[in-house]
Amino acid sequence: MSRLEKILYPKSIALIGASEKEGSVGNELLKNLKDFKGQVYPVNQKYETLGGLKCFKSVVDIVGEIDLAIVAVPAGAVLGVIDQCHQAQVHDVVIVSSGFKEVGGDGAVLEQEIKSKIEKYKMNVVGPNCLGVLNLDDKVNLNACFAPLPPQKGKIGFASQSGALITGIFNISHTLEVGFNQMVSLGNQVDISVNDVLECWADDKNVSQIALYMESINEPQKFRKVATKTSLKKPIIALKGGRSEAGARATASHTGSLAGSDNLANGLLSSCGVIREIELRDVFNSAQVLDKCVLPKNRRLGILTNAGGPGILATDSASSFGMDVPAFSEELKDKLKKLTLPQASVKNPVDLVASASLEHYVSVAEEMLKSSEIDMLLVIYLYITKKHDTELIQELEKLKKKYPTKPIISVFMTTPEFFERVKKEMPDCSIPIFNYVDDAVKGFNVLLNRQRFLKGVTEKAPEFEISAEKIEKIFAKAKKEARTLITTKESLDVMKNCGINTPKFASVLNVKDAIKQAQKIGYPVVLKMSSKKVSHKTDIGGVIVGIKNEKELEEKYLALENKLKENNLFDSLDGIIVMEQVSGGGREFIAGINSDANYGHQLMFGIGGIFVESLKEVAFRPCPLSLFDAQELINATKAKNLLKSVRGKPAANEQQVIESFLRLSKLVETFPNIKELDINPFMIDEKGNFVCVDSRIVF
Amino acid sequence: MSRLEKILYPKSIALIGASEKEGSVGNELLKNLKDFKGQVYPVNQKYETLGGLKCFKSVVDIVGEIDLAIVAVPAGAVLGVIDQCHQAQVHDVVIVSSGFKEVGGDGAVLEQEIKSKIEKYKMNVVGPNCLGVLNLDDKVNLNACFAPLPPQKGKIGFASQSGALITGIFNISHTLEVGFNQMVSLGNQVDISVNDVLECWADDKNVSQIALYMESINEPQKFRKVATKTSLKKPIIALKGGRSEAGARATASHTGSLAGSDNLANGLLSSCGVIREIELRDVFNSAQVLDKCVLPKNRRLGILTNAGGPGILATDSASSFGMDVPAFSEELKDKLKKLTLPQASVKNPVDLVASASLEHYVSVAEEMLKSSEIDMLLVIYLYITKKHDTELIQELEKLKKKYPTKPIISVFMTTPEFFERVKKEMPDCSIPIFNYVDDAVKGFNVLLNRQRFLKGVTEKAPEFEISAEKIEKIFAKAKKEARTLITTKESLDVMKNCGINTPKFASVLNVKDAIKQAQKIGYPVVLKMSSKKVSHKTDIGGVIVGIKNEKELEEKYLALENKLKENNLFDSLDGIIVMEQVSGGGREFIAGINSDANYGHQLMFGIGGIFVESLKEVAFRPCPLSLFDAQELINATKAKNLLKSVRGKPAANEQQVIESFLRLSKLVETFPNIKELDINPFMIDEKGNFVCVDSRIVF
Repeated sequence: MSRLEKILYPKSIALIGASEKEGSVGNELLKNLKDFKGQVYPVNQKYETLGGLKCFKSVVDIVGEIDLAIVAVPAGAVLGVIDQCHQAQVHDVVIVSSGFKEVGGDGAVLEQEIKSKIEKYKMNVVGPNCLGVLNLDDKVNLNACFAPLPPQKGKIGFASQSGALITGIFNISHTLEVGFNQMVSLGNQVDISVNDVLECWADDKNVSQIALYMESINEPQKFRKVATKTSLKKPIIALKGGRSEAGARATASHTGSLAGSDNLANGLLSSCGVIREIELRDVFNSAQVLDKCVLPKNRRLGILTNAGGPGILATDSASSFGMDVPAFSEELKDKLKKLTLPQASVKNPVDLVASASLEHYVSVAEEMLKSSEIDMLLVIYLYITKKHDTELIQELEKLKKKYPTKPIISVFMTTPEFFERVKKEMPDCSIPIFNYVDDAVKGFNVLLNRQRFLKGVTEKAPEFEISAEKIEKIFAKAKKEARTLITTKESLDVMKNCGINTPKFASVLNVKDAIKQAQKIGYPVVLKMSSKKVSHKTDIGGVIVGIKNEKELEEKYLALENKLKENNLFDSLDGIIVMEQVSGGGREFIAGINSDANYGHQLMFGIGGIFVESLKEVAFRPCPLSLFDAQELINATKAKNLLKSVRGKPAANEQQVIESFLRLSKLVETFPNIKELDINPFMIDEKGNFVCVDSRIVF
Repeated sequence: MSRLEKILYPKSIALIGASEKEGSVGNELLKNLKDFKGQVYPVNQKYETLGGLKCFKSVVDIVGEIDLAIVAVPAGAVLGVIDQCHQAQVHDVVIVSSGFKEVGGDGAVLEQEIKSKIEKYKMNVVGPNCLGVLNLDDKVNLNACFAPLPPQKGKIGFASQSGALITGIFNISHTLEVGFNQMVSLGNQVDISVNDVLECWADDKNVSQIALYMESINEPQKFRKVATKTSLKKPIIALKGGRSEAGARATASHTGSLAGSDNLANGLLSSCGVIREIELRDVFNSAQVLDKCVLPKNRRLGILTNAGGPGILATDSASSFGMDVPAFSEELKDKLKKLTLPQASVKNPVDLVASASLEHYVSVAEEMLKSSEIDMLLVIYLYITKKHDTELIQELEKLKKKYPTKPIISVFMTTPEFFERVKKEMPDCSIPIFNYVDDAVKGFNVLLNRQRFLKGVTEKAPEFEISAEKIEKIFAKAKKEARTLITTKESLDVMKNCGINTPKFASVLNVKDAIKQAQKIGYPVVLKMSSKKVSHKTDIGGVIVGIKNEKELEEKYLALENKLKENNLFDSLDGIIVMEQVSGGGREFIAGINSDANYGHQLMFGIGGIFVESLKEVAFRPCPLSLFDAQELINATKAKNLLKSVRGKPAANEQQVIESFLRLSKLVETFPNIKELDINPFMIDEKGNFVCVDSRIVF
């Protein structure tokens, strides 16, 4: 049973802090609870009756079972109320009161005390500092929040870290094509967290999409498990505040929760299949599309319109999301030609022109859906000279049933009167209808993202073996020598034992050996110092590239040796590495493991070299990495373009890239005490191999 | 007098092709003209009267002056009608009829014939293949288009290359906070072009913003002049279709006009100060904000809210546009603390919390506007427990008058009822009100862009002298030798004479000279062949870098000489260049001049080296470059981050970068026969100088 069972589906409620004072929270709650299908018991010492109901001095005075207590007393009184709830055998509580962690100082202390008490009493508690909860299911009709207006009813479950935002969204909801079924205002999450809510809604048939507003992800690792599992059942759409530094500063002052790095959050959400939106409007649009549309098989979009301009704008928008708007085959064009007016254009977008009839629309839409050349259909309708708007929607509904594997979204650039008419005449309309083409195209993009997640996440990653014992020995040696940083040679050995490509290399201690090894490896070679003291070897000239022959090698080797001696770095050396020089053609990538106290290990990948900071084309995914994560990590930044063939240089072997990611993930899974790991650079050699050229490990 | 004077402000109209047939264009036009304040003369051989008006057999039969003819006859009859118009002394015509260039073949031929006739008769003609024109000015009340619904009235002048899109926008307009004053459906632009319309509206007091929908820019160089001049008077907002390849394909099938490269269009629009929007919705939002708000002095945004979540979302959005949301000084925070509830947060965003009163809002807003720490103010209001929404708007209106230099935009996350109430009770409300924070923040961004344009475009670029005579000689020599490609040495000489930094270099013909020059220049040096035959010298190994001493130089020089001899390239050599090696630290930039048949010369700038194709971080600006263009070109791509100090390497001298751009512009202005010019790479040397390391010129 879900921890929110009694909170969202109670049969009886005690409203502690109920009030008759107009405008007070206790009064708003009492009013909003008037249509609740169960029993409401107001609790307040001051009144005998409230809103026509008998009022109780204390929750313990109420005879009969109480499923849920809503607490709206001043902060200082909450602790006592919790005791009374326990005494009255009320296990489920929503604390609306504020004045806790969010105000700091004494409030934070008080919240800790409440937390301890809740744990002791084994209660389920939402809040404090929240707007309340809501469930519009007919059996319950629970409006236990103090939003001025309940939302339009629909299928969304909405959990929010900002209570006030909920009121804004409820207000706006009445103009939307989607509605809400349940709402949990999370507040300070002293007990019930977003994870509990996800677990609850994953199995609630009344909720078909979940929307989240988050400012921080408090337990990211648990969130990952719960959200992934839930995402497989129904879509989760999230708006996360605190993207920017200034925004994160604002969240800190707002909910009293430390905002995690947004980059990490982004990787986490993607990994779980959570659809992240940047603008609130898109949350609603996505919810509508995900509710009404089947997922497309692939990314080819057919566009049908009676006006050129909007067709072009839709094509531009689709292309910017990486969709195909394929030019049709001659065969399909011939078929379409027969179904359209002579002035029509049948290339895709198919432009039926202004004078097209309903029959033109229907027959062409059907031919497009039937063809194997598109995976999804956008229908744009402008009322120009003849009007047959709702009829077209009805026909599209029929086509949707006939061709159930291809999503259809429509755009009607028309007046609100039309949308009202559709709502009234076709309340079960299952074709999303937008006013603007951009919204419709974004809808297809969301469908494609979800399809990619559902497909990708079910593919099992191949199991790669790493030579854990050999790696263990390397770490043990460093540990014994009281080092947390391991040498370059050791790092490269770890990489080799981890199954990651490295260039040929050998560690030597004198020039004679260096020459011998270079002969084996083949010129040109690189010299690198491998020190127990210094990790950033480039800074002190510890890397020499482009050594073309024995003579140069001898000269450079001795010069390096002298330099190290002069700088008192010779004794801390564990060797000088002679390494095959990889010509990456200027393409350098960075991969790394970051260990975050909250998020755990994260794999980073992106464009390396001097571009790391200036281009910021890096992305993160949480470890252990799924195959889906590894694939997505490649595509998350513009590094993907550099992995392709560039100016005659080969493309990287993509399987090797993915394998490298998964092996690195395996490495930190096996050795969780690795704190930092940088591979900078990864390069692509002349054969397309993805090669770790240098690495650095701190544990 | 504007060419559209009689088209948009006629006193009498002949509607040629008027009809009583329901649903026909001739009938729709007749109906829409019923409220026209002047005289309407229907023309159609078939009728005696039409819509209660006397109907004429031909335009020549009409007695009295006719200001404007609207032509809605079949394509084949248009040529004859033009003759009759001429005969009847009608000089101003709108051809609504379609079946011309947009259908190709005979239609295109017919359009050419019309074009010739119009020129001969010196007529002003809008269309063909258009929706008509509209002017809602009370004196005229001209609805001479066949859109099913006229738009909401307002101050926008709207010109569109897509007629159908106009109908969609008119439909939508009734839900918007903006309206339209005049509309010209451009159609195939056989005569009157977007440039004529801009010239007309630049001086029309009824039009305060101009909105454009374009699929191609037919006369870009003229457009640049007209649009820049107009932009200085009133804002132009453009939606341009054909951004993507697939979209450009669709435009070709749509209006029969070849879509120019979108990259060039983008540079052109920016150069003219035209505000380019990607989504239609943003066109309307921008128009509203530009209409109601003063331009900010700088980019510091203050945010005032009674709900944390929306404040955070606004902060994130503002940061993503590069605005500052500065944390307030202790001094200001102390002032604000006194004006707010104890639970409020006064950092910026200022969160008044849900229980804040109207007085809190007003006093804090005033303190923020008064302070020198912000340049613009966003006020977010959520109706939570108490309602004082319209009062807040009224107070903001007062503050706006009191602090007229700082723009104020508001967000009311509330129901449509509120927006209707404001429209009714405060029809002259001059504070933009949005439902979503993202729209409001985009509004500030548009204000900032316009402010940057108005400020930047009035700054005069310094005049740089180039040694035109010396450059002329170089070109003359090549021309004499029948070459269109000049050698590397010549290109570098052109650069030097153009006043652009180059590394030290000398051209030599034998190894002895090479050694002598290298001594003067200082090692390391680079050798480059300078050939009259081969332009891409790297491909054949004609560039050797990293030569560290005399011995290496001798060896490499002779090897290069031999290679050239073996490949029969020695005779076509005009020398081998010995060049100082610039260590750019891996940062390479590309600059180039592109000559487009339509757009003329364009300066390109962006990230160079192997990243040109894979990152596509390049932008264009039209020549001759303004100072504003040069400045914007630096900031148009991520190259701006690489121009800053990176990993201890110096930042580029920005003045030198700008000067280089302006000198290149001067070069092609002086030598317009330059067809291609590439500087790849530009580098930043150890002192921060912006240095042209290699160049290639085709003329």
